[in-house]
Amino acid sequence: MLKVYLAGPDVFLPDAVAIGIRKKQLCSAHGFEGLYPFDNEISSKLAGERVDRLIYRANERMIRRADFGIFNLTPFRGVSADPGTVFELGLTVGLGKRVFAYTNTSSNYFDRVKLHKALSFDSERDVWRDADNMAVEDFGNADNLMIDWAIAEHGGCPIVRHETSPSEMYRDLSGFETCLRLAAEAISKSA
Amino acid sequence: MLKVYLAGPDVFLPDAVAIGIRKKQLCSAHGFEGLYPFDNEISSKLAGERVDRLIYRANERMIRRADFGIFNLTPFRGVSADPGTVFELGLTVGLGKRVFAYTNTSSNYFDRVKLHKALSFDSERDVWRDADNMAVEDFGNADNLMIDWAIAEHGGCPIVRHETSPSEMYRDLSGFETCLRLAAEAISKSA
Repeated sequence: MLKVYLAGPDVFLPDAVAIGIRKKQLCSAHGFEGLYPFDNEISSKLAGERVDRLIYRANERMIRRADFGIFNLTPFRGVSADPGTVFELGLTVGLGKRVFAYTNTSSNYFDRVKLHKALSFDSERDVWRDADNMAVEDFGNADNLMIDWAIAEHGGCPIVRHETSPSEMYRDLSGFETCLRLAAEAISKSA
Repeated sequence: MLKVYLAGPDVFLPDAVAIGIRKKQLCSAHGFEGLYPFDNEISSKLAGERVDRLIYRANERMIRRADFGIFNLTPFRGVSADPGTVFELGLTVGLGKRVFAYTNTSSNYFDRVKLHKALSFDSERDVWRDADNMAVEDFGNADNLMIDWAIAEHGGCPIVRHETSPSEMYRDLSGFETCLRLAAEAISKSA
């Protein structure tokens, strides 16, 4: 049975363990074994080493064991995805494994930045800039272009965008289930 | 001569090219060849394909060519590093290459989140939570634990933190130069 690493800011929820169990059940229903980083389990387990370092090592080890990954790229504490999840996406791609992703908003990166920051148009370079004078990507992508294209190039499908209510932002698993279907299809085709 | 990939939100500056040239000069002075993603050069070069996809491919190719990487993890448009840079950090680690990083603030991730978000303490789980009820990491790290520990475990040194003035936030290269020195030392030791 293929193993899938389940990345996302879900681990920061109060009911992270319950969400993880649900995700693992959905994986089983699609014929995969889900690997979910239950960070909390590490907290009290080992002494003599920093907990954060142990979590890092456990997550990296889990990603190395996985056959592919599904990433929850829902914007987290700002305009972009959780940076821990984005790091794990890069790691998975670097290890040569397939990647699928979803986000629980249908909005573009550019539109989210525009909503939160005062932008000005730089007509000389034909780009929008924020208050720090930094160019704002405007390609219609869900997030930074490296993220969108990593998924498209190394998974074969664009990021699944699914609009949900604010209260369900980190709990809605419709996009996750779509990723499982896409993964099952892609893997049966390449088998 | 070892090749070093130069990642960071520097590419979004109006004078990205000048900053890139300066970084490459500093690399040469330390005995390295700097590879800097001059995104802008791609923009008008090729037709028939999306510019953002071409940028992705060029950056990934450049990272694969590099021997190691130096990452500018200065907070960008929020509390964390630029997600494009974080993706590239993960990719570099996944490819088994060494990683060094700097950030132009001495602040902790937790303190930055506390400055911008209303937090409440969850005494049952012994963690701080934001308005979305998501746990806030409080390990004294510069950013998400996956980022700090990727650098420490795969570079051998913690993220270089250098406090600078807000106007120099994306231009100050002191931390970058420290990374070059650390890389030169680490590589001479392992040679």
